[in-house]
Amino acid sequence: MSRSRSVRVDLGERSYEVRIGHGILAEAGAAVRRATRCERAVVVTVPPVGRRYGRLLLRSLAEAGIRASRVTVPDGDASKSLPQLRRLYEAFLDRGADRSTAVISLGGGMVGDLAGFAAATFLRGMPFVQVPTSLLAMVDASVGGKVAVNLPRGKNLVGAFHQHRLVWADLSTLESLPRRERAAGLAEIVKAGAILDAELFERLEAELEAVLDLEPRALARAVERACRIKAAVVARDEREAGHRMLLNFGHTLAHAVERLQHYRGLLHGEAVAAGMVFAARRSEELGLAPAGTSKRLRALLARADLPTELPPFDRRAYLRALQVDKKRREREIRFVALRRIGRARVISLRPAEILPPGSRGRRSVARARGAE
Amino acid sequence: MSRSRSVRVDLGERSYEVRIGHGILAEAGAAVRRATRCERAVVVTVPPVGRRYGRLLLRSLAEAGIRASRVTVPDGDASKSLPQLRRLYEAFLDRGADRSTAVISLGGGMVGDLAGFAAATFLRGMPFVQVPTSLLAMVDASVGGKVAVNLPRGKNLVGAFHQHRLVWADLSTLESLPRRERAAGLAEIVKAGAILDAELFERLEAELEAVLDLEPRALARAVERACRIKAAVVARDEREAGHRMLLNFGHTLAHAVERLQHYRGLLHGEAVAAGMVFAARRSEELGLAPAGTSKRLRALLARADLPTELPPFDRRAYLRALQVDKKRREREIRFVALRRIGRARVISLRPAEILPPGSRGRRSVARARGAE
Repeated sequence: MSRSRSVRVDLGERSYEVRIGHGILAEAGAAVRRATRCERAVVVTVPPVGRRYGRLLLRSLAEAGIRASRVTVPDGDASKSLPQLRRLYEAFLDRGADRSTAVISLGGGMVGDLAGFAAATFLRGMPFVQVPTSLLAMVDASVGGKVAVNLPRGKNLVGAFHQHRLVWADLSTLESLPRRERAAGLAEIVKAGAILDAELFERLEAELEAVLDLEPRALARAVERACRIKAAVVARDEREAGHRMLLNFGHTLAHAVERLQHYRGLLHGEAVAAGMVFAARRSEELGLAPAGTSKRLRALLARADLPTELPPFDRRAYLRALQVDKKRREREIRFVALRRIGRARVISLRPAEILPPGSRGRRSVARARGAE
Repeated sequence: MSRSRSVRVDLGERSYEVRIGHGILAEAGAAVRRATRCERAVVVTVPPVGRRYGRLLLRSLAEAGIRASRVTVPDGDASKSLPQLRRLYEAFLDRGADRSTAVISLGGGMVGDLAGFAAATFLRGMPFVQVPTSLLAMVDASVGGKVAVNLPRGKNLVGAFHQHRLVWADLSTLESLPRRERAAGLAEIVKAGAILDAELFERLEAELEAVLDLEPRALARAVERACRIKAAVVARDEREAGHRMLLNFGHTLAHAVERLQHYRGLLHGEAVAAGMVFAARRSEELGLAPAGTSKRLRALLARADLPTELPPFDRRAYLRALQVDKKRREREIRFVALRRIGRARVISLRPAEILPPGSRGRRSVARARGAE
């Protein structure tokens, strides 16, 4: 463990540790035992991840004196649903789980969100541990306690804030992750730099390819820094009353895109990449950010082969998709604008101000359409 | 409002007020507006209550500048289910509800639990207001933020802690409540006295019939006192880590009874009454409470025509029903014993110690069987 790094998420009695390192999965059991004091656990996973890492994790838990069993849910975002949630509850009942049984998610963001929401609500709350195996889950879902399932009419419409007891991020699990998904996870690291940490952004400009190629030192440093930034935001505003909304940079349009594509088009991180470039450009147009800000952001994302233009839906479709964004308060939408690289602020805009007719916003959509 | 009473539930930034008074329903709107700052609301109710009080509440909300609509769920505990929960989510979506829309439950404990859990989880949390119209809901569900739905295999297995923004208890709504349900609510007031407030217990010994007959002063005083006691407990232990378990006095056996009767036998408060007498008797047998404690409790409950003996299931059935109690940590059950009237403590017992073979516990079951 000499080379592992630790980020503390500081939330009073709900504080917890995110441990980041290479090849640390076999040591998870003892850490889970220390963090939860549980002697029983249910590991929730998806088939490909469970096949690869399930036995190693279960053995580590057993060595630490934790009786654990495994529940497998189908892979894919469709499993983040009320029917699968109910199946999880039934599986918990079958295994005699109680409030002193830990729920451990082993996998990416989907299984973390689903298992986390089940843990938040079964018996009004069980200890929750996440073992993320995707880059996105390591830097995003690992900090902040947001858990949720989807409804047929929208993503993450049902959820809770349920803080982890521990996050155990073994970076070597990323080796089996396709490059496209690594790039999508990287988009959230770029986001952290763009809104709050110019130094991280500059470092990514220097070594983005090394992170993407999983060069151990560069990767660990980037993941740690992104987690640290998010932890600082969440410590200041656990329930997203204000400051935490900064983390939604790029997400207003990303959610609209995902909705319009019925969640079968871009990956979340890819949609966020395109949404960030759009938001940076709007920030320049509104006189909030200096010229060139969006260009710099775009150049960095393009090196990871991330999309930097919104997909070609027409403006009215985007406006409709914005209406159902759950962050809106009445008619205005809380939109995250950049002030410069490393600094952002939340402003209130009506959907038509986010996507004004005849604005470059519209032209960018038109351009994107032309480009397809 | 000169005659209304107010109990503050002190939970830091989640603190809220329980307002108790006669004929205060028409003033609810302004209070909801002050407590939530919402301009929109969804009122969740059941047919009989909605018919009686829905218009008055909606008018009061409108006068306070709150646009509110109504969602009706079928009456009866079967509605506290995942399918009805999903229907509520859909209704919230239909009405364009967002995080600044208040959810207001108008009715008894069932609709409060269901609407409260929907409010806790839709968009990760909406402001929740309760307008209880049953005595049980006024003194029990109104304080503490426990919300839940049932699964086919057990009650309240899925839930959350979601504190109210306001509870608005109009005592005059109890006039339409059958006497049997008033008595069931009274059982929880007796419980509050038995575990923590000998003075309240003595006052009930003096004026139980007046409370049951809804004599305004006696009723308001009893409801206020019970809410105040529960508020003090919850303020000390919001998430039921220890002290709050005292409120489960009588509930271990009550839950077993309800389970064995498939929730179609005794009302919850009735089962609690029988469970309290049982627990008080066990407390005496274990040398924790002085002789005569259970007799005094039993005498008071009997005056309200509440059952004071457990229904005649055999010991093995009770033991099985105890195993699924969600408060158990591993094999032991946290059992609330009386030390004397007005004082209780939590002890750990195995199910077989709660219901020992050949104990008076068993004989009491046998006696009850003989009595049927």
